[in-house]
Amino acid sequence: MTTAQPTPTGAAATLSEQLAAQLAQRITQRQLPPGARLASVRECPRQQRVSPSTVVAAYDLLQARGLVQARPQRGYFVREAAGAPAPRTAAPAAPPRPAPVDATALIRSMFQAQGGLRAPGMGTLPEAWLDAPMLQRALRRVCGEPEAWLRYGEPAGDITLREALSQRLQALGITAGTGQIVTTSGATHALDLVSRTLLQPGDAVLVDEPGWAVEYARLTHLGMRLLPVPRGHSPDGGPDLAVMEALIREHRPRLYVTVSVLHNPTGASLTPAAAHQLLRLAEAHGLTLVEDDTYAWLAPAHATRLAQLDGLQRTVYISGFSKILVPQWRVGFVAAAPALAERLIDTKLLASLGTPGPLERAVGLCLAQGSLRRHAERVGALLDAARTRTVKLAREHGFSFAAPPAGLFGWVDVGHDTEALAQTLLDAGWLTAPGALFHTTRRRSTLMRVNFATAQDARFWRQLRAAVRAAAR
Amino acid sequence: MTTAQPTPTGAAATLSEQLAAQLAQRITQRQLPPGARLASVRECPRQQRVSPSTVVAAYDLLQARGLVQARPQRGYFVREAAGAPAPRTAAPAAPPRPAPVDATALIRSMFQAQGGLRAPGMGTLPEAWLDAPMLQRALRRVCGEPEAWLRYGEPAGDITLREALSQRLQALGITAGTGQIVTTSGATHALDLVSRTLLQPGDAVLVDEPGWAVEYARLTHLGMRLLPVPRGHSPDGGPDLAVMEALIREHRPRLYVTVSVLHNPTGASLTPAAAHQLLRLAEAHGLTLVEDDTYAWLAPAHATRLAQLDGLQRTVYISGFSKILVPQWRVGFVAAAPALAERLIDTKLLASLGTPGPLERAVGLCLAQGSLRRHAERVGALLDAARTRTVKLAREHGFSFAAPPAGLFGWVDVGHDTEALAQTLLDAGWLTAPGALFHTTRRRSTLMRVNFATAQDARFWRQLRAAVRAAAR
Repeated sequence: MTTAQPTPTGAAATLSEQLAAQLAQRITQRQLPPGARLASVRECPRQQRVSPSTVVAAYDLLQARGLVQARPQRGYFVREAAGAPAPRTAAPAAPPRPAPVDATALIRSMFQAQGGLRAPGMGTLPEAWLDAPMLQRALRRVCGEPEAWLRYGEPAGDITLREALSQRLQALGITAGTGQIVTTSGATHALDLVSRTLLQPGDAVLVDEPGWAVEYARLTHLGMRLLPVPRGHSPDGGPDLAVMEALIREHRPRLYVTVSVLHNPTGASLTPAAAHQLLRLAEAHGLTLVEDDTYAWLAPAHATRLAQLDGLQRTVYISGFSKILVPQWRVGFVAAAPALAERLIDTKLLASLGTPGPLERAVGLCLAQGSLRRHAERVGALLDAARTRTVKLAREHGFSFAAPPAGLFGWVDVGHDTEALAQTLLDAGWLTAPGALFHTTRRRSTLMRVNFATAQDARFWRQLRAAVRAAAR
Repeated sequence: MTTAQPTPTGAAATLSEQLAAQLAQRITQRQLPPGARLASVRECPRQQRVSPSTVVAAYDLLQARGLVQARPQRGYFVREAAGAPAPRTAAPAAPPRPAPVDATALIRSMFQAQGGLRAPGMGTLPEAWLDAPMLQRALRRVCGEPEAWLRYGEPAGDITLREALSQRLQALGITAGTGQIVTTSGATHALDLVSRTLLQPGDAVLVDEPGWAVEYARLTHLGMRLLPVPRGHSPDGGPDLAVMEALIREHRPRLYVTVSVLHNPTGASLTPAAAHQLLRLAEAHGLTLVEDDTYAWLAPAHATRLAQLDGLQRTVYISGFSKILVPQWRVGFVAAAPALAERLIDTKLLASLGTPGPLERAVGLCLAQGSLRRHAERVGALLDAARTRTVKLAREHGFSFAAPPAGLFGWVDVGHDTEALAQTLLDAGWLTAPGALFHTTRRRSTLMRVNFATAQDARFWRQLRAAVRAAAR
């Protein structure tokens, strides 16, 4: 059994939950098979370097979740049904259309990553970097204003948030009135609403490649055809316009979905010239650009956005707060031309009637009061330091970057198939993001995405080097 | 001024909120115009038969909401901007596919209804019936537990809520483990996830007719073909199985989406025999039944659910909390067979990565602690009284019910085209729900849906009678 890492806050409740999650994972993965006896309440604290009360609390949690049972005088045992593999493979399990490279498995592992695995490949900030007190203050204030959330809110979303977003966008050089802003359940939901509003199944959609596997899977699941455009290799940070134009002429796509600033996974950002050329091409062919600015708060305000040059004419701007505030609150938005915003509201109403007002309002308060901006500055400083350290570690261990390090992600070349390495690393407790996950079709890749904030542990880089050497033998 | 009705619990906080809500309504409806002086803190208690402290608290609430202002030595006055109608902007653009009978316009009006219009046709409980203090207590507790919401939660949704739901379903006779329950952003989102998981564009879907226009619009927007089955005219409360069987043989639908208990708009509930016959038909033809139990908390626990008889084999069970707790929090769920639940989680992850944990957890606490059940009992008593009063008023004014009054909605026959009447009534400040809104194709209807809770005002029935007489001339 590996050692439980204490959380940065070190709260006992968190430790026991962490231990429970770690054990639950081992149970569902059948590393602890049905019938197996857990370490006793006396042994476990020594193994895990935690207090006996933490272990008791963790075992209680496992028992409440139906994973283990206590047998008087004998201890805790894994229940017979507990390790049953998630009923994933039964007859109806095939999704309506094949998703590329296990995107949903990737997302699920993202959710599990906190269960004890160290995850230098995953996409969120470390929990310790988040500002819980700021969020608590805002949510408590909203809690005391039930008149704001007892009634249906506005279909477009909470007005406090939309007003604050309108000002925030102005600071980015994007003019959008509150009537042009529609709140969503995170940026992913915003992308979903835009696709459902503007596309019909069978439509072709331009996407960046490499890019975010979940976005490929989402579009594929909706029945769209993906047209990958090479991205991240051009010094101007933009897509390969020659390839894009050829694809446009052949397939007549309606949309191009792109992360213009701090592109995932390369970290590339469009130069003003690249943005201008891209908009000219879009205009010539009647293409709508969906600008996914998920990493907005990690980038300088003066970074070039398509929506800034274009004035939301043929650009739809999307962003959210998962990468800066807290992923689980699911607060995002889309800004668009007024007529399109109305259509997006209709889709939002049909798909879920609305979005939860209280959390939107709390985020709106953090934004309006400037506390979010100050938090983003602190995170920026932490991330700069983390990037410097991680880049140094990577290079010391003999690895190079396929794109200039920037933002949250590094695009690292390890010189060996990273999908094969990923399994070896997972066995050693490290969840990585191999390059194959960022392509529209399955392919061998020697690249991997690392999160600068969560890849600062020298042990990871040592383990990676050892795995590469072993694989090369 | 009418007398404030004491709540069953008689708590001072609730009384003052109720009084404030009543006055707020009069202000937004301009019955108390800008500049008007409210009854003094000495007069009002006599008029309202409440204590002076209740009045002080109510006036404080109105002041906090910006509706009134205190002038030293003079009293409380309605603010100038308080009664302004909600601003309504330009005409929305046409949705990609024609929605039947302006479903999105209907939803939008639902959201606006609180802006001053009286809405005897709309689908939610009066704000004064909701229990803000219960929700505040739960949300404050969640607020103090950031370790529960700073990290990604489980893809299936908050475990506190799913555990409480598993127990709640058991009380309804439905056995579903936490692994079979997936949380959603309200029941509408649950219906959306199920359709996206089980259907392809072009598929045929059986629906109840009359039924909920938003559900028709949602399915149509996803590219499905609607097969309406007559509902609400059979004494067994179920669909017309002969029509359904003929449609199944001709069109081979995959799903039947139905409100089995307290059907919207007729109030019909399946008898056990009707449920049994329906399940037999579904089994014979490999049909999946999507049971939308949106009104679950307004119905007796012993009402017959399809999922109860079927054990979630070919039934997918959906419900939420908009009709009992608060619509804007958007908390709902789906319970399904284990393999299908896994597929629903995949769709949920692709469409929005997850649902907001804090609100789910707060609802889970209300459910687990029994406060939600007690609240539902109070609402049930209020609704019973409101139904008795509304039915009496309707009959006194010469109108009859097309189905036995039950639950939240009455299905009233007014003997004249209700769509034409709706405009006349809207001009007079009453938002109604004409029968045409509950059909899959545009048709003339002399029926209208009334909400028993919000149609207790005798003026509405007088106005309706006058409108019918004028139209008949």
